[in-house]
Amino acid sequence: MTDNYQPQQANHVPLTPLSFLHRTADVYPDHMAVVYNDRQYTWAQSRDRCCQLASALKSIGIQREDTVAVLAFNTPELFEAHFGVPMSGAVLNTINTRLDADTISYILDHGNAKALIVDTELLPSALDAIAARGSAMKVVVINDAAAPATDVSVDGSIDYDAFISAGDANDKGEMPEDEWQTLALNYTSGTTGRPKGVLYHHRGSYLMSMGTVMGWAIPRHPVYLYSVPMFHCNGWGHAWTMAAMAGTVICLRYVDPKKMFELIEEHSVTHFGGAPIVLNMMANAPKADQKTFDRTIEVMTAGAPPPAAVIQRMGEFGFNIMHVYGLTETYGHVLQAAPQLHWSDLSAAERSELVARQGVRFPMNEAVDVLAGSPPKPVAHDGEQMGEIVLRGNTIMKGYLANEEATSESLRDGWFWTGDLAVVHADGYVQIKDRAKDIIISGGENISSVEIESALYKHEAVAEAAVVAMPDEKWGETPCAFVTLKQGATVTESELIDHVGNTIARFKRPKKIVFGELPKTATGKIQKYALREQARA
Amino acid sequence: MTDNYQPQQANHVPLTPLSFLHRTADVYPDHMAVVYNDRQYTWAQSRDRCCQLASALKSIGIQREDTVAVLAFNTPELFEAHFGVPMSGAVLNTINTRLDADTISYILDHGNAKALIVDTELLPSALDAIAARGSAMKVVVINDAAAPATDVSVDGSIDYDAFISAGDANDKGEMPEDEWQTLALNYTSGTTGRPKGVLYHHRGSYLMSMGTVMGWAIPRHPVYLYSVPMFHCNGWGHAWTMAAMAGTVICLRYVDPKKMFELIEEHSVTHFGGAPIVLNMMANAPKADQKTFDRTIEVMTAGAPPPAAVIQRMGEFGFNIMHVYGLTETYGHVLQAAPQLHWSDLSAAERSELVARQGVRFPMNEAVDVLAGSPPKPVAHDGEQMGEIVLRGNTIMKGYLANEEATSESLRDGWFWTGDLAVVHADGYVQIKDRAKDIIISGGENISSVEIESALYKHEAVAEAAVVAMPDEKWGETPCAFVTLKQGATVTESELIDHVGNTIARFKRPKKIVFGELPKTATGKIQKYALREQARA
Repeated sequence: MTDNYQPQQANHVPLTPLSFLHRTADVYPDHMAVVYNDRQYTWAQSRDRCCQLASALKSIGIQREDTVAVLAFNTPELFEAHFGVPMSGAVLNTINTRLDADTISYILDHGNAKALIVDTELLPSALDAIAARGSAMKVVVINDAAAPATDVSVDGSIDYDAFISAGDANDKGEMPEDEWQTLALNYTSGTTGRPKGVLYHHRGSYLMSMGTVMGWAIPRHPVYLYSVPMFHCNGWGHAWTMAAMAGTVICLRYVDPKKMFELIEEHSVTHFGGAPIVLNMMANAPKADQKTFDRTIEVMTAGAPPPAAVIQRMGEFGFNIMHVYGLTETYGHVLQAAPQLHWSDLSAAERSELVARQGVRFPMNEAVDVLAGSPPKPVAHDGEQMGEIVLRGNTIMKGYLANEEATSESLRDGWFWTGDLAVVHADGYVQIKDRAKDIIISGGENISSVEIESALYKHEAVAEAAVVAMPDEKWGETPCAFVTLKQGATVTESELIDHVGNTIARFKRPKKIVFGELPKTATGKIQKYALREQARA
Repeated sequence: MTDNYQPQQANHVPLTPLSFLHRTADVYPDHMAVVYNDRQYTWAQSRDRCCQLASALKSIGIQREDTVAVLAFNTPELFEAHFGVPMSGAVLNTINTRLDADTISYILDHGNAKALIVDTELLPSALDAIAARGSAMKVVVINDAAAPATDVSVDGSIDYDAFISAGDANDKGEMPEDEWQTLALNYTSGTTGRPKGVLYHHRGSYLMSMGTVMGWAIPRHPVYLYSVPMFHCNGWGHAWTMAAMAGTVICLRYVDPKKMFELIEEHSVTHFGGAPIVLNMMANAPKADQKTFDRTIEVMTAGAPPPAAVIQRMGEFGFNIMHVYGLTETYGHVLQAAPQLHWSDLSAAERSELVARQGVRFPMNEAVDVLAGSPPKPVAHDGEQMGEIVLRGNTIMKGYLANEEATSESLRDGWFWTGDLAVVHADGYVQIKDRAKDIIISGGENISSVEIESALYKHEAVAEAAVVAMPDEKWGETPCAFVTLKQGATVTESELIDHVGNTIARFKRPKKIVFGELPKTATGKIQKYALREQARA
């Protein structure tokens, strides 16, 4: 049987998450799309604003494949940019709000941004960045009532609302001609050197949303509290996923546990996400700020394994934790600690151990393996043999913008190489033991910093812990721990070292412990490179 | 910003529903996949059997793009064929079990089937079909313990279990090299002439499953009662969709309301589907055969608008009806009467009216419109102006096998032309008024046969009704109704004609009513062409 039919317009439409917005605005025009303080927009209104943004961008000369950068908090404007920018044919480049002016300048320059949409609070950094860049660009300013007052202004800039009001809501915007067309450009906060620009295509983000709905089993009309910064892997793709499921997005400008509890109650939030540090903040917030719910609220967490104590504490509020794993290069989550039915027979502690693993692949991810040796071979499923996590699928980046060397280094032999070291358990679940560069090699033995951190977290006085390698004349490297204690808790360095030595293999215990606050990235990840520098000094 | 990265193995994997089987067998190996009477298979076992089937097919010379036909009931073997056949690289051609030998022969010949998997009960037709075809083919026989005893046998045939037991469960089979590769071949039971062979590709069925999960909001681990024949649009794609969500498929050899109620109770079924006639059979089954559930069971229905009375009666059992619309050419459902939140404020009768519409697009369907005039223009959203439903998306067939004329007739101007006549309501919901050929043109007035049928259904004595055109010297055509009465009910022809005349416009009332059983297709659709012939005579 052979046929020679070629794809045509009726039966082959490029996959794009923009399709979700149009369907939901058509089918559920009056359902609430976005809520932010006293502002709210239905899906019909939200699409109108996105169309206006696209139209306004085109009117200032933005063309297909131009870059439009956004430096903003999780306000409706950043949500709208996820549709309005690609609807103008352009590439959306959301920038981490915590970056310094020099790095922002590098990103604007490297990505060749033609326009910048920026929140007033971030104008000072943006101004410095633009000045450093040397070339002019169109600046659109988000004047959020909740932003701190500022006197700074940019010559020739325009207010966001004024800008889009000149746009045509009836111009339904561009759809990609090819699903491989670039949709977004996300710079990774590399631990060394300049950030790299990760390229997403329309196909990938469409499938990311569909796979997220399946893997997280999102029902119709979810209410999603947007506590994860949208600049981070496009907020794990959830702006598009919420459009797909006709959800309601509750915007959150700053992460604040008290506010989060309030919003969850006020808007009957069904889903939210956050790094374990955010969950930790909620779990350890003052009692008066916390609320307990008599329904289950689904919570996605990523960035580090959530400590068992946090999972259990969150469960008491009504929060069901889904631990996921991904990287900027994978559009966000691609592995999940998918729950097995028989886990409900286990104790909370046992279940927490299982949930803390990175897990198995999401439906849109086509393959995961853990490879070791040369030539690389899959490791045994014994929970012991360590190898590098490799991934394959349609939600793997196109590559790094203008960096073919780094691209071919990470995309090779049919896999994306994550740089994360992991084991595979007998049930097929992957568990990260460390970043390749976070392994501590002491006296020829590999020591996992994650294993030491887990041991530290088991001590009741420890709120946060991070372990890095410290140069050592005799051993080459030894573990150095950085620890933040819970409020009011006390423990001495030697007590804590003994605790670790009694919990895991004695040779793995840290030789030094530094007490104090830990440096963090914008998304709440502990900045190990800063700690490594400190340990080296 | 430009980049020249081309797709590569790591970041571009052809979309195929086979991926769902592998993920689910990897992630939930011990979860039950298929249950049929006293047989049951976990996902690991089911994948093994599919791999064995693929391997066995390859061992008898089946190659990429060869056709493998299956003539079978909803037993595990037909489920396995949905994976095992494409895993051999071949195209799955499921054949309607109610077809006559002559038509089966035509299909085997037209599709150039290299092998046939057939249930013993259907062997007589298959034998005649093969004999009529004149060329030999490999025959694999499904010996189902629940099949009626038969003495018929085919020279050189082999038992299905013996056949697959020679296959290698470790051979994980082929994946498509291109997502546009043909996955399935489904012959439409045309109302005139020979059936046409509709070609599905891997991309379409993958997206069909993902879109179904979203549009029907299927949770993790659904339990699906397979009452819809899998030969019909591949059972609406649910074999693949259930693999995607790690569901459990409960097989049903024959549609039988009593058995369906029993299976729903025994296996805690969460979802099932059926034509309105099947729902009607359940609603009108003897009381002793019915069961009422204290949970909501999701039911998908298609093929005709479900009568309000049936929707309400089904609701009393705990069944929530989702009315959908599609054709073989669209892989099944592409429109849905998606419920709006405010519908819950309406009366049951009002809600039933809304649910009986064909509705709005599923997420994987990219566009729907209703066009009228020349050149065709979208009709007004007034519930009045009629036009033809046109569709666009990735779940539209590649074309009809070896029939370029019919293909270019139905795929043109960027749309698939359904041949169904509909209106669009103010809320954007599409409602079919008739098939283009079912419109009755009486004295220059268009009369919708569906409208008359709805009026007939409102009479308490009517169990089933179908209206077709009857030639008339004066008017050109007039409506002729065929009606089955409820058991024990009585009504005269003139009473019923008056009832219609008092319910809708008087000129639309049927001129003649014929009482008796209605002829039906294998999927429970009333065969209007047979009634038209009868009316003509």
